[in-house]
Amino acid sequence: PALKAAILIVSTTASQDPATDFADVTLRQVFEEQQLQGQGSLWEVHESKIVPDDVVQIQKQIHLWTDKTPNDNTINLIVTTGGTGFAVSDQTPEAVSALLHKEAPGLVHGMLAASLQVTPFAMMSRPVAGVRNGTVIITLPGSPKGAKENLQAVINMLPHACLQAAGANSRALHKGG
Amino acid sequence: PALKAAILIVSTTASQDPATDFADVTLRQVFEEQQLQGQGSLWEVHESKIVPDDVVQIQKQIHLWTDKTPNDNTINLIVTTGGTGFAVSDQTPEAVSALLHKEAPGLVHGMLAASLQVTPFAMMSRPVAGVRNGTVIITLPGSPKGAKENLQAVINMLPHACLQAAGANSRALHKGG
Amino acid sequence: PALKAAILIVSTTASQDPATDFADVTLRQVFEEQQLQGQGSLWEVHESKIVPDDVVQIQKQIHLWTDKTPNDNTINLIVTTGGTGFAVSDQTPEAVSALLHKEAPGLVHGMLAASLQVTPFAMMSRPVAGVRNGTVIITLPGSPKGAKENLQAVINMLPHACLQAAGANSRALHKGG
Ligand code: NA
Repeated sequence: PALKAAILIVSTTASQDPATDFADVTLRQVFEEQQLQGQGSLWEVHESKIVPDDVVQIQKQIHLWTDKTPNDNTINLIVTTGGTGFAVSDQTPEAVSALLHKEAPGLVHGMLAASLQVTPFAMMSRPVAGVRNGTVIITLPGSPKGAKENLQAVINMLPHACLQAAGANSRALHKGG
Repeated sequence: PALKAAILIVSTTASQDPATDFADVTLRQVFEEQQLQGQGSLWEVHESKIVPDDVVQIQKQIHLWTDKTPNDNTINLIVTTGGTGFAVSDQTPEAVSALLHKEAPGLVHGMLAASLQVTPFAMMSRPVAGVRNGTVIITLPGSPKGAKENLQAVINMLPHACLQAAGANSRALHKGG
Repeated sequence: PALKAAILIVSTTASQDPATDFADVTLRQVFEEQQLQGQGSLWEVHESKIVPDDVVQIQKQIHLWTDKTPNDNTINLIVTTGGTGFAVSDQTPEAVSALLHKEAPGLVHGMLAASLQVTPFAMMSRPVAGVRNGTVIITLPGSPKGAKENLQAVINMLPHACLQAAGANSRALHKGG
């Protein structure tokens, strides 16, 4: 596969009992459905992690995935799921925003516009998208259905965004290396 | 009523002559039209205040409404009207943004997308939405027509947003208490 | 003409060889097509400058255009083109954001919504819009086609935004002075 994705499940419940999470398997399916013509999967889901609704723990995991010296092991995309609502415990957008080097309002707009065609409850999500070092990061809702719809709204553009963000590594990525 | 709203009219003119403001009565009507099936009004407009186009006075009133110890008197929603244009005196979005603990780009998107279907002048508004403590805050344009259209675009979602934001109080709110 | 525009081409390549840039001529055409009924052009393109993809040089030019004492020579609108992608060198939105006194999410929404109707690649742009002193600033993509489409999406609203932002000068502007 050409591109490495990581999934960060933000949920205090799932951090205590991983069996309660259904977003991970749903998001993995969305990635697997993306194929490079005649060359297999476009995306490899390199790793999934579960953290509670805690800014420090969310940021610690993102640092681990984005602060490496750029090399073949760079994570090209992080998708978070959960913690994007209005409750006190919903702090994923704030945790992620603070770490972004670039914001990507076009991806946010794309997710919101697509979601609003499905349900007005899309207004209740608080998505953030951008780049940290060579990694694109987007926040998805916690519900498997909402997470899937938001990811599908942007997934065709993400390879382009990731290749640009990866910069010096883009040659290797184009080769699928 | 289950939910308490407050209206902040931001207008130097109206602060000198309240009779010049027409947004207050218009917004109150929008709230009154929202009914809980068989249980009367969903919203109570707890208070309206008029302040001039002044960052300190805007923020002072928002502090008064949002910095209480959470209890039954918590304001669930603040809507501001006015001061969202491009003139030097238009500072409501900046005054409100600085006080938000969470931003709500989904509500902003919902207001802008709905307004753009009515008029391209929607591009001229600079809406902000989010949460401070347990209170949802959104900024509306100063014209009664624009303010009404923007509020109507999101009003069906606001009870959900307010209940989530109110957190520990949400049980009481569900009971209409 | 009533309104003064300036074009900032952000491109390391064009800064070395201006002949490689095609956005300038394209954007000038969009401005020229805007006519005041029976009074000639609405916009005068007062100046174009080319700078490399460098935050300091982008900001230096914007300071030169926006930090004058307000007078008849005020630039009403700056449009930048280039440097809005996801690569490390793409820093125009960050350079511009840091200088804005007011953000204009309505203009951003208008540009993104219009572009998304043309191509999903609109999600790949990272537009910023707002006001510094009396000048409206918007960032456009680097491709002449994308830049043109984004400018056309908002150009009918820009005179209103610029007149509001210009404040005390708006009387002179209305007279075409
Ligand atoms: Na938006």
